[in-house]
Amino acid sequence: MKDGPYSFEIKKPNYIPSQYDNHITRHLSNMAGQYLDQDDFENQLAEGDNLLYEVYELKRPEVAGEILHGISIVHPGKVGQEYYMTKGHYHTVLATAEIYYTLQGQGYMVMETPEGDWSVESLSPGSVLYVPPRWAHRSVNIDPTQDLVMFFAYPGDAGHNYASIETQGFRKLVVEVDGSAAVVDNPRWAPPESR
Amino acid sequence: MKDGPYSFEIKKPNYIPSQYDNHITRHLSNMAGQYLDQDDFENQLAEGDNLLYEVYELKRPEVAGEILHGISIVHPGKVGQEYYMTKGHYHTVLATAEIYYTLQGQGYMVMETPEGDWSVESLSPGSVLYVPPRWAHRSVNIDPTQDLVMFFAYPGDAGHNYASIETQGFRKLVVEVDGSAAVVDNPRWAPPESR
Repeated sequence: MKDGPYSFEIKKPNYIPSQYDNHITRHLSNMAGQYLDQDDFENQLAEGDNLLYEVYELKRPEVAGEILHGISIVHPGKVGQEYYMTKGHYHTVLATAEIYYTLQGQGYMVMETPEGDWSVESLSPGSVLYVPPRWAHRSVNIDPTQDLVMFFAYPGDAGHNYASIETQGFRKLVVEVDGSAAVVDNPRWAPPESR
Repeated sequence: MKDGPYSFEIKKPNYIPSQYDNHITRHLSNMAGQYLDQDDFENQLAEGDNLLYEVYELKRPEVAGEILHGISIVHPGKVGQEYYMTKGHYHTVLATAEIYYTLQGQGYMVMETPEGDWSVESLSPGSVLYVPPRWAHRSVNIDPTQDLVMFFAYPGDAGHNYASIETQGFRKLVVEVDGSAAVVDNPRWAPPESR
């Protein structure tokens, strides 16, 4: 971690930051229970533990006032009809935002609040997405041929809360229907008042 | 201001956000006292009040946890040998960072702390610059032919403190010397202990 100002490059063809502190890799086995089609999940896993997504982070003090930042790369693929996606999370400090700039690819950000409101925004190169405080978020790569690459930034004290999402997933799934991406209800999801 | 998540585009050729809430314009007259060459400043102003830079902002609640964001565009030009630049500022909440992604152009970010430490980082397309908490910052367009365009993001409660910089400027100036950009001492600057 540097004391003073610093800069680095995120450029074609792979957008990997020219300097970074952490490289996080998430494989199929890290997504147990996240995909609706458990049979296909098990079948795929038996053939190999595919790399689904990667995150390159620059390290900063995890305090308010700092901005944590880096690059996320979601590879193309599907489990059943569901596209490869990130685990998705709330921030531990719920009232913290996140902002994304899409560098490459095509995708969706699937979002929801603890109250059950939901939103899905499309992601394409040159688009900025603002995830307001209190919205859980998951990115989904809907392009079968290329990575979804995004620059992200969020408050230093935000933290990550994966547990809520791991329990029953998001309210909406992004699936392939007749060769195109569609947003559909998640049959495993239950409204907050029934949990 | 929107309640939920939103997205917008920042794309060639002009990178103006496809939606925004504020459009701030800074003309030569807004930079009184900022340039070293006061004679050239007055001469240019007598001929017209040039537009030096513009900021397009998305509005968010100005509280911690939110991330304020938008685009800044510094036009090409000089006053004396000094390039067109932003006013520059500390954040009112001093211990807040800012992050920039350069979309177009060539420039420098000139930075310093209240203690007199300084740093100058170059800006070019695809570069990310991190301005840590406590660092004042000013962007300078060193390309005589094109705009310097950057995406910026900073904590919602940061605020702007222009007064310290207006008094005596930054420790370093970016000037043209023999057709190239050079970082030189600001003769009007004084160290903190002497103020």
